[in-house]
Amino acid sequence: MTETRPLEGIRVLDLSHVLAGPYMTLFLAQNGAEVIKIENPAGGDMARRLVARSTDGRDIDHVAAYLNRGKKGLALNLRSDEGKAIFRDLVAKSDIVVENFTPATLKRLGFGYEELKAINPAIIYTSLSGFGHDDIYPSPMMHRPAFNLIAQAMGGIMDITGEADGPPIPTGVALGDLVAGIFALSGTLLALQHRARTGVGQHVDISMYDCLASFSQRAVLRTYLTGEVPTRGRDSRENPLGSFKVKDGYVVMTLMGAPMWQRFCAMIDRQDLLDHPDLNPDAARGARFDTVLRPMLEEWAEDKTRDEVVALFSAADLPAAPVQDAADLLACEQLRARRMIEDVDDPVRGPMVYTGNPIKLSNMREKVPSPAPALGQDTASVLEGLLGLSPDRIAALRQSGTL
Amino acid sequence: MTETRPLEGIRVLDLSHVLAGPYMTLFLAQNGAEVIKIENPAGGDMARRLVARSTDGRDIDHVAAYLNRGKKGLALNLRSDEGKAIFRDLVAKSDIVVENFTPATLKRLGFGYEELKAINPAIIYTSLSGFGHDDIYPSPMMHRPAFNLIAQAMGGIMDITGEADGPPIPTGVALGDLVAGIFALSGTLLALQHRARTGVGQHVDISMYDCLASFSQRAVLRTYLTGEVPTRGRDSRENPLGSFKVKDGYVVMTLMGAPMWQRFCAMIDRQDLLDHPDLNPDAARGARFDTVLRPMLEEWAEDKTRDEVVALFSAADLPAAPVQDAADLLACEQLRARRMIEDVDDPVRGPMVYTGNPIKLSNMREKVPSPAPALGQDTASVLEGLLGLSPDRIAALRQSGTL
Repeated sequence: MTETRPLEGIRVLDLSHVLAGPYMTLFLAQNGAEVIKIENPAGGDMARRLVARSTDGRDIDHVAAYLNRGKKGLALNLRSDEGKAIFRDLVAKSDIVVENFTPATLKRLGFGYEELKAINPAIIYTSLSGFGHDDIYPSPMMHRPAFNLIAQAMGGIMDITGEADGPPIPTGVALGDLVAGIFALSGTLLALQHRARTGVGQHVDISMYDCLASFSQRAVLRTYLTGEVPTRGRDSRENPLGSFKVKDGYVVMTLMGAPMWQRFCAMIDRQDLLDHPDLNPDAARGARFDTVLRPMLEEWAEDKTRDEVVALFSAADLPAAPVQDAADLLACEQLRARRMIEDVDDPVRGPMVYTGNPIKLSNMREKVPSPAPALGQDTASVLEGLLGLSPDRIAALRQSGTL
Repeated sequence: MTETRPLEGIRVLDLSHVLAGPYMTLFLAQNGAEVIKIENPAGGDMARRLVARSTDGRDIDHVAAYLNRGKKGLALNLRSDEGKAIFRDLVAKSDIVVENFTPATLKRLGFGYEELKAINPAIIYTSLSGFGHDDIYPSPMMHRPAFNLIAQAMGGIMDITGEADGPPIPTGVALGDLVAGIFALSGTLLALQHRARTGVGQHVDISMYDCLASFSQRAVLRTYLTGEVPTRGRDSRENPLGSFKVKDGYVVMTLMGAPMWQRFCAMIDRQDLLDHPDLNPDAARGARFDTVLRPMLEEWAEDKTRDEVVALFSAADLPAAPVQDAADLLACEQLRARRMIEDVDDPVRGPMVYTGNPIKLSNMREKVPSPAPALGQDTASVLEGLLGLSPDRIAALRQSGTL
């Protein structure tokens, strides 16, 4: 075990806001990078205004709190001349810039990749957007509106999520942002790898639509080859696979192959079904999951709890698991053992619970990160430390609204 | 533009199968690594048996075809003494090992991380599994069955996906595998970064459950703070946001704030609703999305196509997008412009369509990768080239079933 985290010594200027960008830079911070979150002095990241009312009546900026742990806070007005000059000086002393504005925004401010590269040829410039920028590849849809729901809808995920006779259903988490965030993390790390060899930086251009289209690979290829478009609720029925209601919730299960079917019939005490022509082989059981298997299972399970049902499946050597909600995750021993759920006493916000870093490295001791910064909390120390600005100069810049 | 791809010179021994591992190593290959896919000589990766019947009547191993592009194929029996000796020699000459067996499997064969580290201290050993291994953190659930549906169910995603009065719905793509694959990619790149500084490798331990729990962060924290568990179909209704049926499919949209509401009422020619007490402010429209807004929109759109509806929204400066299926992705100009959908003429399989690499780097020219290897296709050249085995020796090893 060494004490060095992989990204120690790497400095990140994080211009991103709300979800996709901050989720990505959270992993940079957790792995040792110095992430300086730069926000406009007039209000900062919109995430600061997403509050949850706690049981003891406090409004807590929970989204900013979990996304920005371990980062420094710098307030800087990028529209003022003095602010622009300070940002340019910071770029000269940094390794990575991350942004998720709509594609034209930073170029308009004079901070497109080409401009920053002229200041610092080693800079890595990571963009997250709905449809991508147009400097590496053309992007005809570049100026379309883009957010999570649109990425899920256009990327092909939503169309195949839902019941056979129901509407397309969005996934309950912001897949568009979260998936783009992890791809952007990988892309940035690839650019660091490339820079270590060549000394030059590059633009990393991540599009939410591209990322979710990559997840639709199998459906796209099957459609091309077979001429048949996969539809909601049917594709997964090649094997019997799905959820059913029990006394206190839902359980998921699957059956694959004759030996599982035999154990299943024994478990529910329905040996009469073993050779039933409508329920053999696998594909027949899959096709009748909704109409035959699920109703049968729900009748069998109506007086049994989720835990009892999972235990019965497990005793029969059949795979099953509870459908868990957020309260289940909070209580889960496995997640706590792996530091995926952690109690943290935030000096400002009080007791909080955060999910951890799913990238578990044997050579890295995970640290409890510092709490998310207040707006501009580290402005003076960053500008003094990195750029040598005097306290008087900083006070004047505060006065003028630059900081 | 340099011609060097970021991972050129990095050699990967890929023991993984079907989805999560091969999806991850696909990105290693696309970014320049030499990925040697190692399969048992008796049949190889199960993905080879997932076929789609093409319109001209051929059975095509489409899953193996798209996941294993750009990789080399080595057939090797890891259970035989001679096979084990060859694998150890390969580990001594490689940078990364990737595996997604159930946690005890490789340890039982003598190839746990500790054993491989003894052969090559710089080796990076990336594991993907349902619940994680137990050498870095405890993993009480390590031996439970795990696959995509179970990860979605336990990770909290499925419980909040679906309609308010319906069952939990699994997302139509294999999120458990795909998300773990990208986190494993980032983890491996972090370990490479760490190795460049310290000279030592490490174990990268990725769990599908951990990864999806990270996606549930907001729900977990809100539950902790507010005592209220987010439920299906309700959480997204704080703003009016959702899909509605049109003549030839579905469209997604959102309305946020009074100016959008004004433009919306003008677009559907219902100025009478502008100050309607049941539909003001945003939260009231959100709460009535299912009962009032959606039926109204569906009536308005029943004689309009998806493209017409999206164009009308766009003309009114309101965000909307089509819910696309796989056929739409195949035809999409944006995805083709960005090389996210590519026609490839596979010398064995004929014309194929693949989705590309969503990590767009300005300094890397993307190459069309070689087709997925036949089982053991590169066995002789890899063993001759890397380990100096003679053709006679290779023939004898083939004879004995080792290769």
